[in-house]
Amino acid sequence: MTELTLIAVTSIITAGLTMAIGGLGPALGEARALAQALSAIAQQPDEANTITRTLFVGMAMVESTAIYSLVISMILIFANPFWDYAISRAGG
Amino acid sequence: MTELTLIAVTSIITAGLTMAIGGLGPALGEARALAQALSAIAQQPDEANTITRTLFVGMAMVESTAIYSLVISMILIFANPFWDYAISRAGG
Amino acid sequence: MTELTLIAVTSIITAGLTMAIGGLGPALGEARALAQALSAIAQQPDEANTITRTLFVGMAMVESTAIYSLVISMILIFANPFWDYAISRAGG
Amino acid sequence: MTELTLIAVTSIITAGLTMAIGGLGPALGEARALAQALSAIAQQPDEANTITRTLFVGMAMVESTAIYSLVISMILIFANPFWDYAISRAGG
Amino acid sequence: MTELTLIAVTSIITAGLTMAIGGLGPALGEARALAQALSAIAQQPDEANTITRTLFVGMAMVESTAIYSLVISMILIFANPFWDYAISRAGG
Amino acid sequence: MTELTLIAVTSIITAGLTMAIGGLGPALGEARALAQALSAIAQQPDEANTITRTLFVGMAMVESTAIYSLVISMILIFANPFWDYAISRAGG
Amino acid sequence: MTELTLIAVTSIITAGLTMAIGGLGPALGEARALAQALSAIAQQPDEANTITRTLFVGMAMVESTAIYSLVISMILIFANPFWDYAISRAGG
Amino acid sequence: MTELTLIAVTSIITAGLTMAIGGLGPALGEARALAQALSAIAQQPDEANTITRTLFVGMAMVESTAIYSLVISMILIFANPFWDYAISRAGG
Amino acid sequence: MTELTLIAVTSIITAGLTMAIGGLGPALGEARALAQALSAIAQQPDEANTITRTLFVGMAMVESTAIYSLVISMILIFANPFWDYAISRAGG
Amino acid sequence: MTELTLIAVTSIITAGLTMAIGGLGPALGEARALAQALSAIAQQPDEANTITRTLFVGMAMVESTAIYSLVISMILIFANPFWDYAISRAGG
Amino acid sequence: MTELTLIAVTSIITAGLTMAIGGLGPALGEARALAQALSAIAQQPDEANTITRTLFVGMAMVESTAIYSLVISMILIFANPFWDYAISRAGG
Amino acid sequence: MTELTLIAVTSIITAGLTMAIGGLGPALGEARALAQALSAIAQQPDEANTITRTLFVGMAMVESTAIYSLVISMILIFANPFWDYAISRAGG
Amino acid sequence: MTELTLIAVTSIITAGLTMAIGGLGPALGEARALAQALSAIAQQPDEANTITRTLFVGMAMVESTAIYSLVISMILIFANPFWDYAISRAGG
Amino acid sequence: MTELTLIAVTSIITAGLTMAIGGLGPALGEARALAQALSAIAQQPDEANTITRTLFVGMAMVESTAIYSLVISMILIFANPFWDYAISRAGG
Repeated sequence: MTELTLIAVTSIITAGLTMAIGGLGPALGEARALAQALSAIAQQPDEANTITRTLFVGMAMVESTAIYSLVISMILIFANPFWDYAISRAGG
Repeated sequence: MTELTLIAVTSIITAGLTMAIGGLGPALGEARALAQALSAIAQQPDEANTITRTLFVGMAMVESTAIYSLVISMILIFANPFWDYAISRAGG
Repeated sequence: MTELTLIAVTSIITAGLTMAIGGLGPALGEARALAQALSAIAQQPDEANTITRTLFVGMAMVESTAIYSLVISMILIFANPFWDYAISRAGG
Repeated sequence: MTELTLIAVTSIITAGLTMAIGGLGPALGEARALAQALSAIAQQPDEANTITRTLFVGMAMVESTAIYSLVISMILIFANPFWDYAISRAGG
Repeated sequence: MTELTLIAVTSIITAGLTMAIGGLGPALGEARALAQALSAIAQQPDEANTITRTLFVGMAMVESTAIYSLVISMILIFANPFWDYAISRAGG
Repeated sequence: MTELTLIAVTSIITAGLTMAIGGLGPALGEARALAQALSAIAQQPDEANTITRTLFVGMAMVESTAIYSLVISMILIFANPFWDYAISRAGG
Repeated sequence: MTELTLIAVTSIITAGLTMAIGGLGPALGEARALAQALSAIAQQPDEANTITRTLFVGMAMVESTAIYSLVISMILIFANPFWDYAISRAGG
Repeated sequence: MTELTLIAVTSIITAGLTMAIGGLGPALGEARALAQALSAIAQQPDEANTITRTLFVGMAMVESTAIYSLVISMILIFANPFWDYAISRAGG
Repeated sequence: MTELTLIAVTSIITAGLTMAIGGLGPALGEARALAQALSAIAQQPDEANTITRTLFVGMAMVESTAIYSLVISMILIFANPFWDYAISRAGG
Repeated sequence: MTELTLIAVTSIITAGLTMAIGGLGPALGEARALAQALSAIAQQPDEANTITRTLFVGMAMVESTAIYSLVISMILIFANPFWDYAISRAGG
Repeated sequence: MTELTLIAVTSIITAGLTMAIGGLGPALGEARALAQALSAIAQQPDEANTITRTLFVGMAMVESTAIYSLVISMILIFANPFWDYAISRAGG
Repeated sequence: MTELTLIAVTSIITAGLTMAIGGLGPALGEARALAQALSAIAQQPDEANTITRTLFVGMAMVESTAIYSLVISMILIFANPFWDYAISRAGG
Repeated sequence: MTELTLIAVTSIITAGLTMAIGGLGPALGEARALAQALSAIAQQPDEANTITRTLFVGMAMVESTAIYSLVISMILIFANPFWDYAISRAGG
Repeated sequence: MTELTLIAVTSIITAGLTMAIGGLGPALGEARALAQALSAIAQQPDEANTITRTLFVGMAMVESTAIYSLVISMILIFANPFWDYAISRAGG
């Protein structure tokens, strides 16, 4: 197996798993906060505005860890420095 | 095993697992929020509109991590840069 | 093992596991929402219409992640670009 | 090991596991909804009709993911395109 | 190891595990619904008829996923197309 | 390792594990229903007859998945078609 | 490793594990039912007879899955058809 | 590795694990029932006799699965038919 | 690796793990019963005698499964029939 | 496999997994705190300011462990001292 | 690898793991009982003496399984009969 | 594989996993404390100062274990004594 | 690999894991007892002395299992009889 | 692989994992106690001093097991007797 192939294979597997695993936490977490928000609105309708505002700001913060994983995945697929180095060496 | 085959095999496995694992979190999470929404409607019918609106906006946000996984899966199957490079090299 | 066989074997395993694992989340999630809906109807019979409507719209959204997995499975079995490429090369 | 055998072996294992794992979620989920339905009937006997109707429509929807797994299993045993291709090639 | 033996061995293992794993979900699920039914009868004796009727219809539906696994198991032991093909080839 | 031995070994392991794993679900499930029945009797002594009758019919249904596993186990030990075929071929 | 030894080794391991795993479910389950029975007696002393009678009949039913595992274990140690066949062949 | 040694090694490992795993369920289960009994006595001191009697009869029944595991362990160490056969053959 | 060494190594590992795993259940179980006993004494101080008596009799019964594991461990270290046989054969 | 490739492959895998696993804890944790905050606002609307301020300061602190993982990931991809040393040696 | 080394290595690993795993159960269990004792004292201060006495007698009993593991560990390190035998043989 | 590479590879993997795993506990723990703090503020607004002060001092203490992991990670990447020794030897 | 190295490597790994795993139980357990103590003080401030005294005596007892693990770890690093024997033999 | 490298690699991995795993328990435990303390302060503000004092003494005790792991980690990196011996021998 040439080295190029090995780096390609590793990048593919890692990119997929990083996104798959890294997305579990935020998905479960945001849904939990959302569920609580709905319950809070039902309990205190007059505060619906404060609650939904806090909810969406907080969800954006939780979403950030999913974004980190997506960024790492995308870097590994489209801007992988190890792959670039290997191609440049293979082309030399 | 030629290198083309190896990349193909890896992409197939990763695409499937990424979608399978990456879809667990959103599915469980959205259903949890949905369950809570139904409970909230039963408790406070007058707020049904606010609740369902918040619910669907929130579910779309949770769904986003499933979409990220789907995107990575689709990229790996149909727009895989490593596969394209390997084919171009094999054809050269 | 020829390369065609290897790709076939990989596609078979991945297609099965993707569907099996990817279906767990939606099945458990939808059932949870359904259970809550029944409880909500028993608690607030007058809102049965709003509840069941929200339930089925929400379940369709949860079902979407199962559909994603089914789509990936079907693509791997019947429209696998790696398999098509390998056959075309084998036939060339 | 000839390639035919390898594809056969893989299809057998995958078909079994897909059904076994893919059936866990719906079985547990449907039973949960059923349990809640019984509890709801006991709590609100007058709504028994609405409850059982919603229950069976919802269970059919949950059952769908088990059906997806069964379909994939059956396709792998009786309409496996990779197996058909391999037999046709072996017979050629 | 001849190919016949390999297919036999695979079918034996898969048939056993499919039934063992595929039976866990329905067993636990049906028992849960049954437990809830008993609780519901104790709470609302007058509805015992509606409850037991709903219970047994629902349990039959849950049992269906166990039946799917049993069917796959039995097909793998007694009507395995891959085994039939292998025997016919061995006999040819 | 002759093929006869391999089939024997596989059948032994599978028979044992199928029964061991396949018996967990029904054992836990039946016990759960039984526990609930005792609680229901204590709560509503006048319905003891209805409760125990529903209990034992339901437990028989749950027991069915254990029976399925026992049947598969026994078939693998005493009526294994792959073993019969292998012996007949060895004797031929 | 002769084939006799291999079958012996496999039978030993399987017999032990089948009993060990297959006994977990009934032990935990029966104890759960027993605990509930004691709670029920404390709550409704006048029904102690009905409760203990239902308890022991139900425990016998739960115990049945442990007995199935014990039977499989004992068959594998003392009446193993594969071992008998292997000895008879070794003696022939 | 001679066959005698292999059987000895297997028997040692299996005997230990069977007892270790097979004792977990009864230990946890009996303790649970015991805890409930103490709670029941505190709640209904007048029924202490009925409760402790039912407790010890039930614990004996739960203990039975630990005894099964101990029996299998002891058979494997001191009355192992496979070991006896192997020694007799080695001595022949 | 001589056979003596192999038996020694296996006995060491099994003895340790049997005690380690086999002691988890009783430790957790007894502590649970103990915790409940303290709670029961606080709730019903007048029954402290009955409760502690039942507690210590029951804990002895739970402790029995830990003793079984200790016995198996000690037999494997100090009275191992397989080791004795191997030494006698090595000395012969 | 040259050493450069090996270091590249290891860095890719580690970078992905570090971010994926290291992001689970903060995502779940922040969402939990967020859910509690919404519940607290609904319960005590007058303290919404104190609550959201404490929430966002606390979430930043929790986020810090995700940042640590991101930093390690980025260092491994873009400022890896082992990779730099290996390249400098390869170029020498 | 000489046999002495192998026995030494095995003893080291087993001694460590036995203590590590075997200490989990008692630590968690004793702490649970301790927590309950504190709660009981707060609830019934007049019974503090009875409660702490029962607590420490019970904790000693739970501690016994940790002691068993420590004893096995120490025997394996300082009084290992297999090691003694091996040294005596190596010295012979 | 030269020894330098091996040490580099090991350090990379360990640094990543140490941070990833070592950050889970503090992230979950701090979030739990934070959630409780918000709940406590909502319940007792007058004590908001005491609560937040205790919260942040406590979180710093919990954070300390994450810092320990970060320190070990950083030492392994930038101040690894084994790597330094290996380089000095390689340069000698 | 010389035997000295092998014993060294094994001792290092075992020492680390023994402490890491063996410290989980006491840490979680003591914290649980501590949490309960704080709750008990809040509930019954007049008994703060009895509670904290019982708490610290009990925590010392729970800490003992962590100490056992630390002792085993330290013995393996600094007073390892197997290592001493191996060095003495290597020096002979 | 020279022995020096092997010891270095093992020490690196063990040091990292020991800290990572050994820090989970204290982090989760301390946070639990902290959460309870905040709840206790909200419930009984007058006892805030006693509670925070008990909290920090207790947390220090829980922290001790994290310190044990850190100590083992640091010993393995900077004061490893096996490494020192190996270097001295390599230098001899």
